[in-house]
Amino acid sequence: MGRVTSRHPVVSIIDGASTQTTDTLVVEEPLEIRINGEQFSVTMRTPGSDFELAQGFLLTEGIVRHREDISTIRYCDGTDDDGRNTYNLLDIALAIDLPPQARNAQRNLYTTSSCGICGKASLDAVLTTSHFSLTDERTTIAAGQILAMPDRLRAAQRIFDSTGGLHAAGLFTTSGELLVVREDIGRHNAVDKVIGWALESGRVPLHGQTLMVSGRASFELAQKAIMAGIPILAAVSAPSSLAVDLAREAGLTIAGFVRGGRMNIYSHSERIV
Amino acid sequence: MGRVTSRHPVVSIIDGASTQTTDTLVVEEPLEIRINGEQFSVTMRTPGSDFELAQGFLLTEGIVRHREDISTIRYCDGTDDDGRNTYNLLDIALAIDLPPQARNAQRNLYTTSSCGICGKASLDAVLTTSHFSLTDERTTIAAGQILAMPDRLRAAQRIFDSTGGLHAAGLFTTSGELLVVREDIGRHNAVDKVIGWALESGRVPLHGQTLMVSGRASFELAQKAIMAGIPILAAVSAPSSLAVDLAREAGLTIAGFVRGGRMNIYSHSERIV
Repeated sequence: MGRVTSRHPVVSIIDGASTQTTDTLVVEEPLEIRINGEQFSVTMRTPGSDFELAQGFLLTEGIVRHREDISTIRYCDGTDDDGRNTYNLLDIALAIDLPPQARNAQRNLYTTSSCGICGKASLDAVLTTSHFSLTDERTTIAAGQILAMPDRLRAAQRIFDSTGGLHAAGLFTTSGELLVVREDIGRHNAVDKVIGWALESGRVPLHGQTLMVSGRASFELAQKAIMAGIPILAAVSAPSSLAVDLAREAGLTIAGFVRGGRMNIYSHSERIV
Repeated sequence: MGRVTSRHPVVSIIDGASTQTTDTLVVEEPLEIRINGEQFSVTMRTPGSDFELAQGFLLTEGIVRHREDISTIRYCDGTDDDGRNTYNLLDIALAIDLPPQARNAQRNLYTTSSCGICGKASLDAVLTTSHFSLTDERTTIAAGQILAMPDRLRAAQRIFDSTGGLHAAGLFTTSGELLVVREDIGRHNAVDKVIGWALESGRVPLHGQTLMVSGRASFELAQKAIMAGIPILAAVSAPSSLAVDLAREAGLTIAGFVRGGRMNIYSHSERIV
């Protein structure tokens, strides 16, 4: 994958002096996902691990549950002006019937409620769609293991240092082993790539694992963790109120501001000992 | 608006010691936008400036061009379980015919191309949809003015310090005056709120202005700047490659890594003197 970063000419201004130089930027390209030939979603993502991204997205949107639910994934024949395959168009054939919500998936999971749209309805949509329950998931992990994750994640990031433009997500065991790390310009994509990797390798539901993210813990990331059966979501930055509300109801542990040897635990702190 | 932040109980772990305390989190709630009664989009946003958010979004998606294109905006009667208005549902009546792309707006602007999806097609979609051209926009601004913007933006942020969870966007004149600042859990929402404020006050196209954002400069943010006629986009963090490609073609100046008295100019550096 030569397309993850690209070099660009740049005028650099330092202390009032201007110089011509080059800078490495992270690549952003659209990825269209089709299911059985029909457009399902378009996302701006960093190329690489596209099959994982698509599989993780289908799982976290409640479309599939096991890797066996997906028959085939292939790049379509979309071409650019020069006739080259863009590798920006995936077609997926399902081995199962398309669930009802797949028909309007551009309207994300949290919009499938019939009542007036509100945070509570968004929570209920996740809770009723999720295939895996966390309420009886009894993983415990030492606080020190979580506190060590940001450095381990950062060390495993291959691209961040050269561009400063990528989110990372990683999956850790309770003994602190980093199973997989994925990066993307979109934080939700990095998480979908990690979860798609797990789906592909038959590890879902991801009970016993901690999902560590380099940024904030939004509602959407909490949703993805729950949909994959992940019991613990750890974030370098803040969670949102709705992410915490969802986590409390669904049995997900959220640790935020995990940095510099400290953290805040916002929900289900019984897992962290 | 009492809903921008909320207090949550939290277990704080510092140097191995655990204490019960409370933390202030930024609120995240879904906002559904309907046009003439039909669902147009749903976004997770921080409540506040919702009318601006909706107007900015309609402008940057190419649906409206002037404030006169919008007849009315009102909160609908969506209610939560306790029968209270959620203030999460806006209905907008247009004074113009609905453009074709509004009918599948869940598929964002960059997906409206008919050829195989690719970065180039995404650029072309923005260039052909934009109502305002930047190629003859001759604004110049002193480099020092841009370098001073991050501190001014930060000083104007009301919520960030208490939650650590918000993106900010601000609009500056060439003499460094901060016209408006808006915050949101989503970076694109903060920008839409700023642009919606400008639309409402009759300032669009925003020639002569600089849009400063607290995070990264993605393709989507470059698109929004161009759609509003903003000639300069400045960001504290990195731009993406596609944002820079779009900026070059459309005549937008992008300054990235604006921090600590330095910055990189990625496109149309002639505006910065």
